Amino acid sequence: MQSWITRSRETVYDGGRWLTLERRELELPNGQVIPDWLWLEMPSYAIVIVVTEGGAFLLFRQTKYAVEGVTLAPVGGYLEHGEDPLLAAQRELREETGYEAPEWVTLGQFVVDGNRGAGLAHLYLATNAREVTAIHADDLEEQELLHLSRAEIEDALAAGTFKVLPWATAVALALLRLPR
Amino acid sequence: MQSWITRSRETVYDGGRWLTLERRELELPNGQVIPDWLWLEMPSYAIVIVVTEGGAFLLFRQTKYAVEGVTLAPVGGYLEHGEDPLLAAQRELREETGYEAPEWVTLGQFVVDGNRGAGLAHLYLATNAREVTAIHADDLEEQELLHLSRAEIEDALAAGTFKVLPWATAVALALLRLPR
Repeated sequence: MQSWITRSRETVYDGGRWLTLERRELELPNGQVIPDWLWLEMPSYAIVIVVTEGGAFLLFRQTKYAVEGVTLAPVGGYLEHGEDPLLAAQRELREETGYEAPEWVTLGQFVVDGNRGAGLAHLYLATNAREVTAIHADDLEEQELLHLSRAEIEDALAAGTFKVLPWATAVALALLRLPR
Repeated sequence: MQSWITRSRETVYDGGRWLTLERRELELPNGQVIPDWLWLEMPSYAIVIVVTEGGAFLLFRQTKYAVEGVTLAPVGGYLEHGEDPLLAAQRELREETGYEAPEWVTLGQFVVDGNRGAGLAHLYLATNAREVTAIHADDLEEQELLHLSRAEIEDALAAGTFKVLPWATAVALALLRLPR
């Protein structure tokens, strides 16, 4: 199977760090040309499912602009320019919760949109986390830090209480990975 | 907890059916105003994890523009304008595989990007599927239909062989839902 070829690209909107929209000319393996394929350059992000020394899951109850009402949310945020995804995840854990964790497992990295790119989602599981400092989050949303049990997370996931796609992905992959 | 208020919106790029980029003025609960928040209107999509009468998972091996090399992929596609998500999922199953299924469970609906929108992902699990017709896919990618076992899917998910975020989400949620 052959991949598509990018013949040219043109920026049609430059939103700086947050989003660049490109129009690309692509060539398919059968020779067909698509003159106006839209492509999104967006910052990649890291998400961490955190389990404490005591076996609790660290999560937030918060609002999010694209979501109606409140949602459960894991630790996470955008990578700084050139930042290693794991280091970004560890920084977000410290900033958002004041916790650190000695054990990190990758749950995978995924392209957010199979057609248009939109950055990569880097997902992690951190275990045996413990509180080491105060919270220094720079997020715009109000967040309430929660300690939840595995059963509570499973119920919340099934009930749709994680309302943002990569958050549900990270929670589901962590639940599959963690021994019962 | 209060949600952010949208004070105004302006289209900065109109990509027709596929993508509209808006610049919005938002007001936060503390009164802070963000004058240039970027928002993506993109079509929502449905994804289906399909299990046959014989207990096999129906998946594709295929390329995808945003992905390096080949990837495993579930059944799925964009909703037509105004189309019900479940009907879209059932249509995609028929078109892409020639199968129909009598049993459908929702695995959730999620906003793709918590900050910028980018449409909704509607995820389903369809069981007891059987072949009823020929394949009539209109996808641009070459696809090879596979019948895989649960163990093969679990290994593929852990190995990162599902390379697109919503595909991994749907597979992980289906594995959590299906009895072992």
